[in-house]
Amino acid sequence: MNALNVAEYMQSLGLQARQASARMSSASAAEKNRVLRTLAGKLRASFDALASDNARDLEKARAAGLAEPMVDRLKLTPKILETLAQGCEQLAAMPDIIGEVIGLTQQPSGIRVGRMRVPLGVFGMVFESRPNVTIEAASLSIKSGNACILRGGSEAIESNKALARLVRESLAEAGLPEDAVQLVQTTDREAVGQLIAMPQYVDVIIPRGGKGLIERISRDAKVPVIKHLDGNCHVYVDDPCDVDMAVTLADNAKTQKYSPCNASEGLLVARGVAARFLPRIGAVYAAKGVEMRCDAEARAILEKGFDKLSPNGLLKDATEQDWFEEYLAPIISIKVVAGVDEAIAHINHYSSHHTDAIVTRDHVHAQRFLREVDSASVMVNASTRFADGFEYGLGAEIGISTDKFHARGPVGIEGLTSLKWVVLGQGEIRQ
Amino acid sequence: MNALNVAEYMQSLGLQARQASARMSSASAAEKNRVLRTLAGKLRASFDALASDNARDLEKARAAGLAEPMVDRLKLTPKILETLAQGCEQLAAMPDIIGEVIGLTQQPSGIRVGRMRVPLGVFGMVFESRPNVTIEAASLSIKSGNACILRGGSEAIESNKALARLVRESLAEAGLPEDAVQLVQTTDREAVGQLIAMPQYVDVIIPRGGKGLIERISRDAKVPVIKHLDGNCHVYVDDPCDVDMAVTLADNAKTQKYSPCNASEGLLVARGVAARFLPRIGAVYAAKGVEMRCDAEARAILEKGFDKLSPNGLLKDATEQDWFEEYLAPIISIKVVAGVDEAIAHINHYSSHHTDAIVTRDHVHAQRFLREVDSASVMVNASTRFADGFEYGLGAEIGISTDKFHARGPVGIEGLTSLKWVVLGQGEIRQ
Repeated sequence: MNALNVAEYMQSLGLQARQASARMSSASAAEKNRVLRTLAGKLRASFDALASDNARDLEKARAAGLAEPMVDRLKLTPKILETLAQGCEQLAAMPDIIGEVIGLTQQPSGIRVGRMRVPLGVFGMVFESRPNVTIEAASLSIKSGNACILRGGSEAIESNKALARLVRESLAEAGLPEDAVQLVQTTDREAVGQLIAMPQYVDVIIPRGGKGLIERISRDAKVPVIKHLDGNCHVYVDDPCDVDMAVTLADNAKTQKYSPCNASEGLLVARGVAARFLPRIGAVYAAKGVEMRCDAEARAILEKGFDKLSPNGLLKDATEQDWFEEYLAPIISIKVVAGVDEAIAHINHYSSHHTDAIVTRDHVHAQRFLREVDSASVMVNASTRFADGFEYGLGAEIGISTDKFHARGPVGIEGLTSLKWVVLGQGEIRQ
Repeated sequence: MNALNVAEYMQSLGLQARQASARMSSASAAEKNRVLRTLAGKLRASFDALASDNARDLEKARAAGLAEPMVDRLKLTPKILETLAQGCEQLAAMPDIIGEVIGLTQQPSGIRVGRMRVPLGVFGMVFESRPNVTIEAASLSIKSGNACILRGGSEAIESNKALARLVRESLAEAGLPEDAVQLVQTTDREAVGQLIAMPQYVDVIIPRGGKGLIERISRDAKVPVIKHLDGNCHVYVDDPCDVDMAVTLADNAKTQKYSPCNASEGLLVARGVAARFLPRIGAVYAAKGVEMRCDAEARAILEKGFDKLSPNGLLKDATEQDWFEEYLAPIISIKVVAGVDEAIAHINHYSSHHTDAIVTRDHVHAQRFLREVDSASVMVNASTRFADGFEYGLGAEIGISTDKFHARGPVGIEGLTSLKWVVLGQGEIRQ
């Protein structure tokens, strides 16, 4: 396809999506759930058929010299398909929030005014590598009564096409328009440029991938973008707190997995508990090979502890830049603070407003932290690793937003809807 | 000020607003309400002082040859100040929604997850002519715990400065930062360009004014914009309906005022009631001098009626463009449709998704219209003129949004807030 053809092709996808979205927005809960259950069945029954398409992607990836961990991310195994099938069934079992009316109350004029939850319309999703995103996005789109245009990575194009085919068959069998879920069939990069600049057809763009991709899309999009940038998350260990709990949480938040955006990158410790807490967490981190980049006070306390442990070079001095850093690696910045005021100020200045937690026994400190820390998720006595759509009970997650506008934090079905006003009268007129 | 100075000046306003917003976000309900009540008192007590500043704007406007109706819009009368004072008191009497936690429920992991309503942070408002917007925006900003930067029209600069001074005095007297409300003191146009392009300081822009201004701001803004474009609203007279009610509503929706965005511009009539309804509404419109731009079927029915009335040239043939038009004038387009299906399709195609109403007796038609018409406000048996923050019980209105993202329709305090996630644990970790 040349650029002109790509533009025409994307416009036709847009028009078809817009038309399909009208029907989807008034689809009944039963219709949508039938699609999801049919899709679950097809995913379980189609392993052999999918395996051959998937094999073509894997072959091409290996031929292109992709590292084996990256090739692994492209694999569709029976276990992955079963997980996707279960995800569809879980969505089908969830209540349908489309059409719900909230807060219908009578006004002095006599009219009753409330708000009805309706789909946004059409969303475009741009994602990289893992083909399961095709099913996750399609199933959320169906449940929420939207239409979607999916643009996956070129390295998974055959797998994505095969999965999208199952989705479209399931839609058709339930009497709903196939074009409610469309996969962009070309790997031409120009297709993304078009997708993010058709406000007449696409209401919102959700990019999932590297920071470069997301920044580029946000800069060029002509429609709103639900985007996730950095995850520089913190644990603040307050005075007073349960030091055992603090060690457990600071350990889990940093080391349970290093790569997720909700892993903690910064540890703040109240001066009053630093001498009791730091040597213990230092020993845990040292045993796991976690590098600690410290301010002078934290380093001094940790060094005393390390005399008894091992001088293994894991203690470093933090630079100003360290407080901003999202390491996504076995590295953590550590700072001693006077108390909750300094902790809140530090977090509001340096954190990426993703997820921040306090470990405390003090009720007033807990309330202040919850209220004053300006992050998408604020936690008391829990691991930052919980910041996730499934853990929050959303049933599924289309992405995480680090913006404040519209959706914030983990985005599920509700983030794909809007509230319109409904007015019920009996002939009332404006005086 | 030269361009460089304007940029520096706006950056300094931005930084001050960001700093003030931190304090405002944790201000207590009592503190914020005290500011509003103090401000109400000052507005009532300051008529003489304000009158001299206001007189300078009026003088300048007349000297510049502004038409008297435009000059009128700049006037601060005791009645306007009393209305503004009452608005502040009403806001003070409303519950404070900042800090409210909704939906706190326990998840399988043991953590309890809910959402807390918090201010967006800083909003920028760009508006024209009427100086009362200064007080309306400032009071909503204070109640919602935000900080704001206000940029009014140059024709009202002296009045705006005087009003902003009262707001800042009221903030200071309550121990809150004056910079929570800042008025841009220069009339340099470059200031707007800066204001809409400082994402580090300003979270959202709300323009109020002509379509040209709003389109320009939406195109150039680097932050989200809550914007109101067209109001091409419809009344659909269904079969069956109470024809008396239909005449009353179609009259009020069109003629109670011609200039508001929620006045109706299009009238759709079900074929089954056209012969009974159209001659009656035609007589009402003719008596008020409303021009009717009709499809052939509506015109034929109206012409029969007009034989008995007066052939006064108010009947015209509608062009395709008429169905899209926002007249804001004594003109209405009229079309006969087969029924509710065609009415919904017509509205979803031609309307500006602002406000559309059905007049009906049929429950199924009412439910379908509410669900399927994709507009910010959908109404049954009520005048479109009700689409308004005060009529909806929002207490006040900062603007109307014709977008679906974030706020939709009339925007009150809630539209100036976001929901962040709060997680309460007892030491839970991610497995």
